[in-house]
Amino acid sequence: MNYSKVTEADITELRKIIPEDRFFCPTTKHYDHDQFNGKKSAPDVAVQPISNDEVSAVMKYANEHHIPVAVRGNATGLMGANISVEHGIAIDMIKMNKVLEYDPGSLTLTVQAGLRIRDIEEYLQGEPFVYVPSPAMKWAAIGGNLSTNAGGMKAVKYGTTREHVRGLTAILADGTQINCSHKTVKNSSGYDIKDLIIGSEGTLAVVTEVVLRLIPRPRYEKTILLSFPDIQRAIQAVPKVFAAGLTPTSVEYFSQEVVEKWEEYADQEFPVKNGSGYLMVSFDGNDDKMVDGELADLVNVAKENEVTNTLIMKTEDPVAQEVWDARSQFETAVQETTTAMDEADVVVPINKIPLVLKEVAVVSEKEQIRLPNFGHAGDGNLHIYICQDDYSDAEFGEKTDRVLKALYKVAKESDGEMSGEHGIGYARKDYFEDFYGTDYVKLMSRVKLAFDPNLILNPNKIFPVYTSDEAPELVEE
Amino acid sequence: MNYSKVTEADITELRKIIPEDRFFCPTTKHYDHDQFNGKKSAPDVAVQPISNDEVSAVMKYANEHHIPVAVRGNATGLMGANISVEHGIAIDMIKMNKVLEYDPGSLTLTVQAGLRIRDIEEYLQGEPFVYVPSPAMKWAAIGGNLSTNAGGMKAVKYGTTREHVRGLTAILADGTQINCSHKTVKNSSGYDIKDLIIGSEGTLAVVTEVVLRLIPRPRYEKTILLSFPDIQRAIQAVPKVFAAGLTPTSVEYFSQEVVEKWEEYADQEFPVKNGSGYLMVSFDGNDDKMVDGELADLVNVAKENEVTNTLIMKTEDPVAQEVWDARSQFETAVQETTTAMDEADVVVPINKIPLVLKEVAVVSEKEQIRLPNFGHAGDGNLHIYICQDDYSDAEFGEKTDRVLKALYKVAKESDGEMSGEHGIGYARKDYFEDFYGTDYVKLMSRVKLAFDPNLILNPNKIFPVYTSDEAPELVEE
Repeated sequence: MNYSKVTEADITELRKIIPEDRFFCPTTKHYDHDQFNGKKSAPDVAVQPISNDEVSAVMKYANEHHIPVAVRGNATGLMGANISVEHGIAIDMIKMNKVLEYDPGSLTLTVQAGLRIRDIEEYLQGEPFVYVPSPAMKWAAIGGNLSTNAGGMKAVKYGTTREHVRGLTAILADGTQINCSHKTVKNSSGYDIKDLIIGSEGTLAVVTEVVLRLIPRPRYEKTILLSFPDIQRAIQAVPKVFAAGLTPTSVEYFSQEVVEKWEEYADQEFPVKNGSGYLMVSFDGNDDKMVDGELADLVNVAKENEVTNTLIMKTEDPVAQEVWDARSQFETAVQETTTAMDEADVVVPINKIPLVLKEVAVVSEKEQIRLPNFGHAGDGNLHIYICQDDYSDAEFGEKTDRVLKALYKVAKESDGEMSGEHGIGYARKDYFEDFYGTDYVKLMSRVKLAFDPNLILNPNKIFPVYTSDEAPELVEE
Repeated sequence: MNYSKVTEADITELRKIIPEDRFFCPTTKHYDHDQFNGKKSAPDVAVQPISNDEVSAVMKYANEHHIPVAVRGNATGLMGANISVEHGIAIDMIKMNKVLEYDPGSLTLTVQAGLRIRDIEEYLQGEPFVYVPSPAMKWAAIGGNLSTNAGGMKAVKYGTTREHVRGLTAILADGTQINCSHKTVKNSSGYDIKDLIIGSEGTLAVVTEVVLRLIPRPRYEKTILLSFPDIQRAIQAVPKVFAAGLTPTSVEYFSQEVVEKWEEYADQEFPVKNGSGYLMVSFDGNDDKMVDGELADLVNVAKENEVTNTLIMKTEDPVAQEVWDARSQFETAVQETTTAMDEADVVVPINKIPLVLKEVAVVSEKEQIRLPNFGHAGDGNLHIYICQDDYSDAEFGEKTDRVLKALYKVAKESDGEMSGEHGIGYARKDYFEDFYGTDYVKLMSRVKLAFDPNLILNPNKIFPVYTSDEAPELVEE
């Protein structure tokens, strides 16, 4: 696909839409990357719109002039979906960061897409309602959370971002503004365009406003930390938790290796010992006795798997805060131990996690590469870090490719998916068709063309688009 | 759109795909309608496939020969989506009714699309897991529940059908078989084709297999029946329930008028009196004290709205069964009082229900037509019955049209939707573009064409398809 280069004439026209103080040309280094390490590419122009009309006018111009557009919030994406691979225009949503309406009577909060998760949580502090999804990266904009259908810790009980979005406003490639669903719990009126746009990583439309679902804030919440003799016994306890009728809000696992790296990084002792595999499980509810009852039942389940130690914490206890901080620092702690790293976030049914962890051990040994990991045991979503250590870039690239292929193979065989929450982006697009098949990619291509016939929205992301029955040309790296 | 009539040559070819005992030509009266009263139209041929391959072969043939196809399960649809408006082939899914896999370790149950809701509930009886969605019509096939994204009583806490479907297998218009998502809680891997197909009323693909999400069966469940001096005070208590931090599984409302009709129909007394507006609220959980605590809090909320009577029931109490039976008989009881009826199932934010009920009173008075109603107060989904009584068919048609327009107007102004769970089908397609706008319908048209370029799948349903910028021709009535 050949795109138009942004010309002086284009710049003159675009400046008429977006004023000087929100118009960047040439662009700064800020705009040439996101949190994926493997690619840098700068847009020709970056703009910071403040209204639907501005976004619409930019899209209309770009579409008519065949200029590629990539959208970004705080660019915390891990898979390169924010990168302007084909240059063109970057739409930076960060100034569309207003709360538009707090409507407790309908249990909704309507916000602009550039508002950060931390701002949403802060806005609702002290209110009787809460926006549930809790991704670890609180600096992410809500629009970014929609673009990958972010999951976070509480998906096991409450679902992912899409289950907490009632409606959205989006600008299509040609500048048309649409509203998809509004504020209601149910909707059986036409195609579910809202959920199609959620998770499409900015390739179908530009989301500008989001109606978030609120729920009553649970009155009680407790977390238990459990250590097991090994990681397999920890993980194998998880399906038993559900079979016992328990409904945890989160079930996190991590290995002794990760705990040790964190202890070095934080220069602090982890509060639970005597294990080499850990679970961290939370429960919430409107009655503390119910929460305590579920915790007691959980300990009984854990005993079957030879639990070595337990620590129960109320959410407001200082130690609970320490433990959650540790959990959110695991990634940084692992990063500190190596020169560079990449990551797989495959997701499988919870009873298939042991298979993935066995494959992690096998491929780590075979490739002689470190693969520390942790993740969401309650929903089968693993974060497996591929550490470069002393390997050259070329060696690391080849090893990463083989590690990913091995992990995708086991995920596919386990009825799992390539990504649980990070998306496919630029980084994994070349693996997509292998995993999901040509028929599926052709269907996705037709959907893409239905939204964006000129292919200007976030090109070269997720999958190579078939524009005819011929295989699409791959972008040069 | 002109479709090919099924010829003798077609019948010969189709008989090679589907054997004699599952092939119907000419078709019986069974196939010329669903539960929508306003339209009858028979398919030329009806087939009962038993495998994905058979469905695929029928679709491939139909697509190549431009023969329209409508899919049906038990045809319990209320909006005419099951009717073969353009004749052609009816695919009757009722023999694809097997449980394919019960996999408690991944909290999933995989079934064929023709299996009925009652069969699913029966299959799981005694198991520690439950499939949550609970539409009143238990004879509906699960495929039909997907086609309208059925809601049911428990949507307020647990969401609608789509939140309880992990993955599905579907046959596209050209016969291609695709799998959309598999068994996992999360998925951030490409477009959400699963949710696009769910709710598309058989216009995008033929769903053949469904992976259902199971959750641990809650240990305790109680229901409370409350009467209020009038329906407005009943309804206005609902947002206060959530503001008090309560998380009911269902919040049903009904009027004294409906209760009286039911008492006549059932020749039985309703167990709660002294009101002219009612709420029925359920709570579940793993601790009976928590359930009791939420019930006590609810009664306090109800006192603010001058509750006149309350009755608390365990789910296993005989009186609870009576009350739920009554609730499921309300529709039939209303039907018994009139010659014929039609129905609106608009959905609005819960704090806007009073506005809709005021409009119901206004339009009922203005048109001199009875509009008894009840519904899901916890999720804003109302069932408003339009009673023909002594009006002629022509008068009733005109009055129904004006009632629907009035109700859609107030729903739209309230950030609501046309349908909460029944869908748009054939019956409401001519109102769709007015409600959702031409831009939105054009986008939906492009999505439709991406899936079904020859428009053979369930033609003339939901919305008139734009195949160019010109307005589509409307089908003759």
